[in-house]
Amino acid sequence: MEEYKNLFSDSIRNELKSFAEYRTAYQEIYTFRNILSVLQWDSEITLPEEGRAERGLQIGLLSGLIHSKYAGENFYKLATKAREENEQKILPGQEQRRIEFERLFQDLDRSRLLSRELVEEFSITTSKAHSIWAKARKENRFEDFAPILSKIVELSKKQAECYGYQTEPYDALLENYEPGERAANLEKLFFNLKSNLKPLIARGKKIPNPFQKEIPIYLQNKLGETLPNILGLSSKISRLDASEHPFSTSLGSKDKRITTRYDLKDPLSSIFSILHETGHSLYEAGISEIEGGPSPLHDSVSLGIHESQSRLWENQVGRSLEFWEMYYPILLENLNIKESELSFSDLFSYINQSAPSLIRVEADQITYNLHIILRFEIERELINGKIQVYELPEIWNSKMKEMFGIVVSSDREGVLQDVHWSGGAFGYFPTYTLGNIYSAQFFQTFLKQNPNFQTTVKEKKDFSSLLNWLRQNVHWKGKFYSAEDLIRSATDTNPDSSYLVQYLEKKIIELEST
Amino acid sequence: MEEYKNLFSDSIRNELKSFAEYRTAYQEIYTFRNILSVLQWDSEITLPEEGRAERGLQIGLLSGLIHSKYAGENFYKLATKAREENEQKILPGQEQRRIEFERLFQDLDRSRLLSRELVEEFSITTSKAHSIWAKARKENRFEDFAPILSKIVELSKKQAECYGYQTEPYDALLENYEPGERAANLEKLFFNLKSNLKPLIARGKKIPNPFQKEIPIYLQNKLGETLPNILGLSSKISRLDASEHPFSTSLGSKDKRITTRYDLKDPLSSIFSILHETGHSLYEAGISEIEGGPSPLHDSVSLGIHESQSRLWENQVGRSLEFWEMYYPILLENLNIKESELSFSDLFSYINQSAPSLIRVEADQITYNLHIILRFEIERELINGKIQVYELPEIWNSKMKEMFGIVVSSDREGVLQDVHWSGGAFGYFPTYTLGNIYSAQFFQTFLKQNPNFQTTVKEKKDFSSLLNWLRQNVHWKGKFYSAEDLIRSATDTNPDSSYLVQYLEKKIIELEST
Repeated sequence: MEEYKNLFSDSIRNELKSFAEYRTAYQEIYTFRNILSVLQWDSEITLPEEGRAERGLQIGLLSGLIHSKYAGENFYKLATKAREENEQKILPGQEQRRIEFERLFQDLDRSRLLSRELVEEFSITTSKAHSIWAKARKENRFEDFAPILSKIVELSKKQAECYGYQTEPYDALLENYEPGERAANLEKLFFNLKSNLKPLIARGKKIPNPFQKEIPIYLQNKLGETLPNILGLSSKISRLDASEHPFSTSLGSKDKRITTRYDLKDPLSSIFSILHETGHSLYEAGISEIEGGPSPLHDSVSLGIHESQSRLWENQVGRSLEFWEMYYPILLENLNIKESELSFSDLFSYINQSAPSLIRVEADQITYNLHIILRFEIERELINGKIQVYELPEIWNSKMKEMFGIVVSSDREGVLQDVHWSGGAFGYFPTYTLGNIYSAQFFQTFLKQNPNFQTTVKEKKDFSSLLNWLRQNVHWKGKFYSAEDLIRSATDTNPDSSYLVQYLEKKIIELEST
Repeated sequence: MEEYKNLFSDSIRNELKSFAEYRTAYQEIYTFRNILSVLQWDSEITLPEEGRAERGLQIGLLSGLIHSKYAGENFYKLATKAREENEQKILPGQEQRRIEFERLFQDLDRSRLLSRELVEEFSITTSKAHSIWAKARKENRFEDFAPILSKIVELSKKQAECYGYQTEPYDALLENYEPGERAANLEKLFFNLKSNLKPLIARGKKIPNPFQKEIPIYLQNKLGETLPNILGLSSKISRLDASEHPFSTSLGSKDKRITTRYDLKDPLSSIFSILHETGHSLYEAGISEIEGGPSPLHDSVSLGIHESQSRLWENQVGRSLEFWEMYYPILLENLNIKESELSFSDLFSYINQSAPSLIRVEADQITYNLHIILRFEIERELINGKIQVYELPEIWNSKMKEMFGIVVSSDREGVLQDVHWSGGAFGYFPTYTLGNIYSAQFFQTFLKQNPNFQTTVKEKKDFSSLLNWLRQNVHWKGKFYSAEDLIRSATDTNPDSSYLVQYLEKKIIELEST
């Protein structure tokens, strides 16, 4: 992408007047999208309780404006004219601009299939649903969440019909998160993965929580604040807060925010959320570093690729021996724990334990994928109209019994645990396991090229070789490649789940030897 | 305003179709304005350092959108049509709607005098200027702030020319904050006040800070969090944060946020900021409680009236004996101070001390008005082109010498101390002293009607009679009256500074007797 930085030179701007015009309009849409992200971030972190209803109106109005600007006639005409101009004029960067228009129109033609009314209704409904879900989860009352969830499912099905699909409605929604992916393909992929994980899961074991006392939140926060900086996410462009469900979000090219949640009894819960969300934000920060933006190429490839970045830092890095040899003293110091109260080996075994459990976000890295497969199977049938919202608790619980062999005692720890459906994000869950698959493949390739990485982490707290590799091979590619092509370009092999299985097997062997 | 609640009944909505259309457009503008307030709040409180430049673009874009919607042809036509319809149809609420249109067009005709480009440039420039001012203040380098301040002055003069004026450019800007007020009138008013305050100031005395040790911020914050609730501002619709310069802002009808700043050596600094900002937010919350909004009548009358609400809680209430008899034990408990370490009489004398000082926001309630008069005189000449930005430090310092008899040793404690000019808010300062005048007049009237107030405060921590009086006589009137008419309606007398002088004289006598 060497030519990219020249895209906006004066000479090209003068030659490509329509391109410059279309890019100005794109910049405006990008800015409004960031404003929307500010509203959403504030809704999760700082909004007073009774302000929520009116905030829903604000978000609805702005979402509608963005949709009408992006999917409206004016922008479509500007982009079409700019695309034609680019085809006619042979100038440096022509091929890259061709790809930029390809990506743009893939998305634009889809967006234009939804009416402004449907977008606004969806936005207002999901904004309301968030607090209803949070309350229902807290009070363990699925019946309070069911009516608005039914409404969201109905609106999502309407979306699927507007988008269109070849085989099943769910594919139309999956396309929002993983362009080109299909449910039938995932079904096969997940079936294979399940088979390979089965023997590993049988070898797993549960390790008791090694923390002997509750750790107050302010200490956990003090520890957590150290992490993004160590990994390479500067506090000059980021901040850490607490929220119901951890997330990361981009509010501008130099404003990347992450959140975590605190468990008094287990400070690792927060640490691994921070590792995960930092991975997402490093990807976003890297994309924003590409010159010549914002543009449709200044974007992530897919949620699977996005998730590969968070999983890489959370698991491949964050559960490794060298990371904990480096971070163990920092943890002890910040949490006011003596070495005698928490042995390294107990801690490290706990970090790499594997055992069936109820909560996805607290699951180990092996069984985690089963949680995803369960959700994928359920939401696919929900969107395809094979099951109804009121049946969800029963179906959830019986699948948990079948796949994990465990009984769900409350919906709070069952069907109500995740935020995703309250946001209408059907098709999102499978990208988590795709992320796990991709992350193992990226990290193995990096390690082969950087055999000293483990030493520099352990001895110098230095992750820069990894961050630079990711920047060059993933972040700075933006949306130039498809997910498949990006993986081939970075790893010289096709997407392949065997890297993940090998990695997890190594982890099981480590665990067995403790 | 009894009829107001019926304004949007179905029958009137059907009869007044143009009115309903105009109100829908107004609601949209109101919502975008609140979104802008979210961006601005976030800029002050939570924005990472390097995100500032792009935030400026976001604020500029949204300000431009709001201006073009509000001052654009479409809204003007809708409002004109609705106004004509209201004149033609004799229906309940007609007179109130007539006043609504009067207020709207007063403002609209002014707004339309500024070009979108000027509004955007002003917004982007002042957004940038904020951080430059903050840094310059911190580093005591006026020369770093001067270039962008010159730019702001230049843009403000352009605004004044666009608005037009009869006597002097400064009047055109004053009108933004205190409709109908004129510099020549303020000059007289302030001259009288100065004369009356002179003998009082001579009788004032400085009382040493009674706090014997530094109070950590988390304790001050814990204490501060108790205050808004006690006064009647629920935490369900508000929040308290820390910022460089304390402020209050409305992000929605049920989202009123205040900020304070902490002085380790003097926790009263933060307490009085919270009292002040809570007063502003109670006014905003009261306005939002008026039914049938948002509308041009759902707004504050003027900044002088707004300030009367903050000053009333800060000074009339917050420096009274009964308030401190109630709050003293709460302060001791929350700050971990023993009664033996801080006597009530030392504390109360300190709260009501009067002595010339450098910093406006920390000045006592008597000399405070001199700080305002100084700023009024300077900014008036600056906008009228009689003096230049580079002369400010010298002029500031010589006026401080002349009026207060004190030498300014650094610009940080002189011309750089206030945030206002970095925001281009010329014409804002005089409203502070107007607020002091009005607050004394409101509070004396209230006390005459509620002789038991002091007892209920002291014995029951109950301020509800005052809050209800303010709601009924000020908050729930919205922008129905002019400032002058509102004061007459609430107090049965004309605006009159003698109430303030009497009140301050009483304070001096209290101080002399300690």
